[in-house]
Amino acid sequence: KTHIDCIASHRSIRLPGFIDVHVHVREPGATHKEDWSSATAAALAGGVTMILAMPNTNPPTVDEAAFNLTQKLAKAGARCDYGVFVGASSSNYQTLPQLGSRAAALKMYLNETFTTLQLDDLSIWMKHFEYWPKNFTLCAHAERTHTAAVILLSELYKRPVHICHVARKEEILVIRAAKEKGLAVTCEVAPHHLFLTSDDLERIGHLRGRVKPEVSSKEDQQALWDNMDIIDCFATDHAPHAVEEKNSEKPPPGYPGLETMLPLLLTAVNDGRLTLDDLVARLHTNPKRIFNLPDQPETYIEVDMDSSWTIPSAMPFTKSKWTPFEGMEVSGRVKRVVLRGELAYIDGEVLSQPGQGIDVRSQVLVSRSSGDQLSVHIPQMGTIATSQPS
Amino acid sequence: KTHIDCIASHRSIRLPGFIDVHVHVREPGATHKEDWSSATAAALAGGVTMILAMPNTNPPTVDEAAFNLTQKLAKAGARCDYGVFVGASSSNYQTLPQLGSRAAALKMYLNETFTTLQLDDLSIWMKHFEYWPKNFTLCAHAERTHTAAVILLSELYKRPVHICHVARKEEILVIRAAKEKGLAVTCEVAPHHLFLTSDDLERIGHLRGRVKPEVSSKEDQQALWDNMDIIDCFATDHAPHAVEEKNSEKPPPGYPGLETMLPLLLTAVNDGRLTLDDLVARLHTNPKRIFNLPDQPETYIEVDMDSSWTIPSAMPFTKSKWTPFEGMEVSGRVKRVVLRGELAYIDGEVLSQPGQGIDVRSQVLVSRSSGDQLSVHIPQMGTIATSQPS
Ligand SMILES: [Zn+2]
Ligand SMILES: [Zn+2]
Ligand SMILES: [Zn+2]
Ligand SMILES: [Zn+2]
Ligand SMILES: [Zn+2]
Ligand SMILES: [Zn+2]
Ligand SMILES: [Zn+2]
Ligand SMILES: [Zn+2]
Repeated sequence: KTHIDCIASHRSIRLPGFIDVHVHVREPGATHKEDWSSATAAALAGGVTMILAMPNTNPPTVDEAAFNLTQKLAKAGARCDYGVFVGASSSNYQTLPQLGSRAAALKMYLNETFTTLQLDDLSIWMKHFEYWPKNFTLCAHAERTHTAAVILLSELYKRPVHICHVARKEEILVIRAAKEKGLAVTCEVAPHHLFLTSDDLERIGHLRGRVKPEVSSKEDQQALWDNMDIIDCFATDHAPHAVEEKNSEKPPPGYPGLETMLPLLLTAVNDGRLTLDDLVARLHTNPKRIFNLPDQPETYIEVDMDSSWTIPSAMPFTKSKWTPFEGMEVSGRVKRVVLRGELAYIDGEVLSQPGQGIDVRSQVLVSRSSGDQLSVHIPQMGTIATSQPS
Repeated sequence: KTHIDCIASHRSIRLPGFIDVHVHVREPGATHKEDWSSATAAALAGGVTMILAMPNTNPPTVDEAAFNLTQKLAKAGARCDYGVFVGASSSNYQTLPQLGSRAAALKMYLNETFTTLQLDDLSIWMKHFEYWPKNFTLCAHAERTHTAAVILLSELYKRPVHICHVARKEEILVIRAAKEKGLAVTCEVAPHHLFLTSDDLERIGHLRGRVKPEVSSKEDQQALWDNMDIIDCFATDHAPHAVEEKNSEKPPPGYPGLETMLPLLLTAVNDGRLTLDDLVARLHTNPKRIFNLPDQPETYIEVDMDSSWTIPSAMPFTKSKWTPFEGMEVSGRVKRVVLRGELAYIDGEVLSQPGQGIDVRSQVLVSRSSGDQLSVHIPQMGTIATSQPS
């Protein structure tokens, strides 16, 4: 298939700055995998102007000292706006709420993970549901039957819960049933669960392809697409590891995802499987509402809908020099990113510098207590230029 | 401690026939472990006049043919009244409801068990919750977080669920929270979780002491006693295996329990930890209501509250010639059992013959559709004789 269609006109579309609520930045603790500078460069290159950073760092952000350290590193390194999660441990349910107003949200790890944050005991889950303030977001890594269990706690404690990286038919079906009953549950899905299945592990490698939740069957994948109407957010679960680690005998689980999410989703738009409105809802409007995030004024991205390319073996900005999407043909490319009035990214170049990102819980951005958080602010969307050569 | 107090007067108490909603009869498939004749003899010797038999036989009662076989064997062998569970499999959710009116209830195995009945997939749980008629009882072996998950399904499908053999603090606490919110959940606790802890495994033997759910910590045990008010039923989970099997290198999990439950509970009454009303509620009134069981006319038991004895290495009637309660001092003994007007057990002798038991779902007993099932029928209780020598 030749690239001859590239002579044709290209549709360039302006979209609001996208928000990725699930990113593993790896700093502090594993800056050979990623750091605030590289993660946020990858974010901007992927059309993401705000990331929420997961707490399973080293040290994990389970107390004020670790949280302060991470915030300091983030402030120094971030090129885009950010929030920092706090992590639930078996002993910190009483102290964490003091960090509530400064944290992106609370993260609970309810399944086997690579961290020390796993919570096995329902009594501890209940404590966190009881203590974490109802007006702050509570997220759970809760696979399979744990999805149902954590939704029950949400119902018993009359507080919302957000389910991370839904990957399976049984998970999305119980979330659908709960939503249909009016329960306060929201959820996110990662691109690799929408665009890969276990069949792809032949190509990726079964060891290198390890990820949690694992990539699922075609039936699971189809169930995600069939229930797109109840998927609130897309989120990368960007989980970078050094390519040498991923190619080792015992690779840690996780995929980088920030630079490939939008091209994959724009391809789905081009294929008629999604609309641009679907993307804006799941990467801007809903994340803002669910996580009570501030507006980023004068912030938008421009994508070229018609630029076709093949995903290479590694993406430019993440330190994780591999990608499970290698070789996939996509159409759609991030052209420009404007962050609070400043050009942050253009045509392969990140212009935003470390330190230019702002903590979403600081008062510099429009306060989330201003009532703005529930408004749906979408910059004018539409074709702003045509006939650009690719 | 001498037995000199035995000269003193003995209180003999009449109680309603007790109902054990959780018994593994082992027939068909493993009659060297137990059969209908031996299981129901053990029941009567334990003051139990009605048992509900679990479906994990060989073949398991997951379809009409197996259910008919088990009912035929039960009719021929049972010395007390009985009901037969049907078991949920991953494929029978559409056909089981046809057996609903003949079955004791539906049993779902949601945790690792020794049978092929384990259900891993929440989608299958949902199918059973959808298809099993709301007016028939649905029971779940659902440990730890599965307790919460199955309660959510109960709430989503607006139908009650009964949780088998609650054994841990986290389980009883989430059931308490659910009950306090008015959710339709009931539960049972087995004597071994009330009277044994993991400390007892030193005495019992760690291999021989295997049981599912495992005997728990002192803290778990205490939580069961502290939440006695929300425990609806006591049930033995009588799970007999040949003593040679239990003493082998790889013993199957399970304890016999029919002949020891009442002595242990009567001892707790004597110790002031329970009342006789607590026992009647949990072994007669609540099981009748939850499982919609018929009245057994002219049926009662008489217990001697003051007979003190030491539990021997094995009990007389079960084929399972060991007991985890060996060596424990108890006070309280079943003296007489009258089943539908006939003396069924007296002073160590079972008089009821195989075939005298009646299927609780047959129309011979008072129909459960007669409206009687919600009435609280308790035969006159009280001291009927004193000063009997032991
Ligand atoms: Zn996760
Ligand atoms: Zn993650
Ligand atoms: Zn092009
Ligand atoms: Zn907006
Ligand atoms: Zn069980
Ligand atoms: Zn059992
Ligand atoms: Zn005596
Ligand atoms: Zn009665």
